Amino acid sequence: MSLTALFAAGDGVFAEYDAPLRAAFARAGLDVTVVTQAAPDTVDYIIYTPSSPLQDFAPFTRCKAVLSLWAGVERIVGNPTLTQPLARMVDPSLTQGMIEYVTGHVLRYHLALDRPATEWVPVVPPLAQDRKVGFLGLGALGRACAVAQAAIGFDVAGWSRTPREVAGVQCHSGADGLAAVLERSDILVTLLPDTPATTNILNATTLAQMPRGAYVINPGRGTLIDDAALLSALDQGQIAAATLDVFRTEPLPADHAYWHHPRVTVTPHIAAATRAETASDVIAANIARVQAGQGLLHEVSRAAGY
Amino acid sequence: MSLTALFAAGDGVFAEYDAPLRAAFARAGLDVTVVTQAAPDTVDYIIYTPSSPLQDFAPFTRCKAVLSLWAGVERIVGNPTLTQPLARMVDPSLTQGMIEYVTGHVLRYHLALDRPATEWVPVVPPLAQDRKVGFLGLGALGRACAVAQAAIGFDVAGWSRTPREVAGVQCHSGADGLAAVLERSDILVTLLPDTPATTNILNATTLAQMPRGAYVINPGRGTLIDDAALLSALDQGQIAAATLDVFRTEPLPADHAYWHHPRVTVTPHIAAATRAETASDVIAANIARVQAGQGLLHEVSRAAGY
Ligand SMILES: NC(=O)c1ccc[n+]([C@@H]2O[C@H](COP(=O)([O-])OP(=O)(O)OC[C@H]3O[C@@H](n4cnc5c(N)ncnc54)[C@H](OP(=O)(O)O)[C@@H]3O)[C@@H](O)[C@H]2O)c1
Ligand SMILES: NC(=O)c1ccc[n+]([C@@H]2O[C@H](COP(=O)([O-])OP(=O)(O)OC[C@H]3O[C@@H](n4cnc5c(N)ncnc54)[C@H](OP(=O)(O)O)[C@@H]3O)[C@@H](O)[C@H]2O)c1
Repeated sequence: MSLTALFAAGDGVFAEYDAPLRAAFARAGLDVTVVTQAAPDTVDYIIYTPSSPLQDFAPFTRCKAVLSLWAGVERIVGNPTLTQPLARMVDPSLTQGMIEYVTGHVLRYHLALDRPATEWVPVVPPLAQDRKVGFLGLGALGRACAVAQAAIGFDVAGWSRTPREVAGVQCHSGADGLAAVLERSDILVTLLPDTPATTNILNATTLAQMPRGAYVINPGRGTLIDDAALLSALDQGQIAAATLDVFRTEPLPADHAYWHHPRVTVTPHIAAATRAETASDVIAANIARVQAGQGLLHEVSRAAGY
Repeated sequence: MSLTALFAAGDGVFAEYDAPLRAAFARAGLDVTVVTQAAPDTVDYIIYTPSSPLQDFAPFTRCKAVLSLWAGVERIVGNPTLTQPLARMVDPSLTQGMIEYVTGHVLRYHLALDRPATEWVPVVPPLAQDRKVGFLGLGALGRACAVAQAAIGFDVAGWSRTPREVAGVQCHSGADGLAAVLERSDILVTLLPDTPATTNILNATTLAQMPRGAYVINPGRGTLIDDAALLSALDQGQIAAATLDVFRTEPLPADHAYWHHPRVTVTPHIAAATRAETASDVIAANIARVQAGQGLLHEVSRAAGY
């Protein structure tokens, strides 16, 4: 059967995806025509980023699913016109990039790479087994990064909304589980989605629950952190240093305190990128599933907001 | 049978090993008395570091093996009085520490952690699969570190004297194999022992065989590198940066160019430490083997020098 997919994203994104999508649909044995303009009632699937001008999904009466190219869906999930099933992006290349980013920054703090020796004073760092790493969020990304840290030898715990089991990781869940992870985390990595329930989850109270001198790495979303509380915790030494990839306002304004703080490392939302090659295979696989009457993979829960 | 082990090391080392050795011998079911002074003809084993005053092994006629507490034996192997079998230290904690050090510094270069953003210019680093990491030396340490980098996703090759097979690592050996590893290594890690054959193995010629802008990490031995050639390659941009843990003279003299070079990171011989707890178990296991008539583990070849 011949299908029509509307590609609705920001400027220039289609050029990047055109050939990879064709190749992925061919590999999956799907006959899909990808267009950037179409009469709404001819569209079977929408491949989407919220930077697209398309904001009204109501006319797309035939559309079976909206397939996000982004992992974070906080700018889509609240759209009241969107009644079609929504899938977020879980791209193996994005997951791999996040593993590398998180592992690099965890080891940077573990080995004190920011403080190179200027004289010969040999101090061997503790082994990873004696360093506790915590993850807020045990989803596609948090889980993969937690497993990678456990494989290196770190003592790893994690926290999710619903109970999870992850080999080699002490798992906690729900409101009660948060303090258990915070209290033990020498290095904390936040990989939660942006939802009403996660806003400012790192605030004055929760930062104070962490061990004094702990490190924070946030490649999740800017809204997870109460910025004033983090800056204050940094200035008081409660938090030794922070690496932040995501911010309430992006680009991070040039006059923001984070740019100039000696113990804050800003990375400009580069922790992990969706790559057109692998993401196109994910899109094709998901369309193939729906066409075969199977459930959509990585479907977003409107109630949970992610 | 009651055995006598002479502990011959630098000042203060015995205090660190006394209790761990007792515990390890008890666990191994061995009746070994560890002493720091003994009539040579009463000694069954010598636990040794070359910082000990003991330099003449000839009187130890009953001694079945000399067990080094250090991984590198270049200061022992040439001792003409040493005719007893010599084992170098292969300590799981030391291996683990080396994995953490190497992984941290490889990721530091891979992710350009030394060049934090000062403005919002998003550039996503390549994935590890597109970064080639090379190991000179595929022994206890090189092999473990190579496997760890392959597990993260790097494209890994290695080089040894004799042919080796390491899962996930492209292995080369002998004089012909060196260029193959050098030519492809975006990041090169040197974990060779100090022997006549490895002296200045990184020199003007071999550094020029590497890709322009490559990185060098040397936690092996200072003698592996022709220092003047490395400094020149750094200044010419042939080598982008180097991290050095070991030096011809240690402590590295305060006026050495390495301390002040903007693209050289000096770590003061702290990449990995032998830990008394785990090393004592290794010593006990080796004595148990010899007592049972089995071969000594990690025996040093006098001919090869390691
Ligand atoms: N910086 C970057 O470059 C970048 C790139 C991609 C993604 N991201 C961010 O990373 C986030 C995570 O991605 P993902 O693919 O791992 O998402 P995911 O698979 O949806 O996982 C989200 C995790 O957060 C947990 N969670 C959500 N709400 C919670 C709550 N109220 N309390 C406790 N746990 C809660 C979930 O719990 P359950 O397991 O119980 O559902 C799940 O474990 C994305 O939402 C996005 O914001 C950043
Ligand atoms: N910085 C620190 O804190 C620290 C700590 C511990 C050790 N070290 C250093 O690390 C070195 C390696 O330790 P290890 O336990 O891995 O030693 P190992 O098990 O003896 O391995 C040595 C490796 O180097 C290879 N090799 C030796 N001579 C060679 C030559 N001429 N050409 C090519 N390959 C050669 C060997 O080849 P084969 O496999 O064919 O034998 C082997 O793969 C030690 O010698 C020591 O200098 C440093």
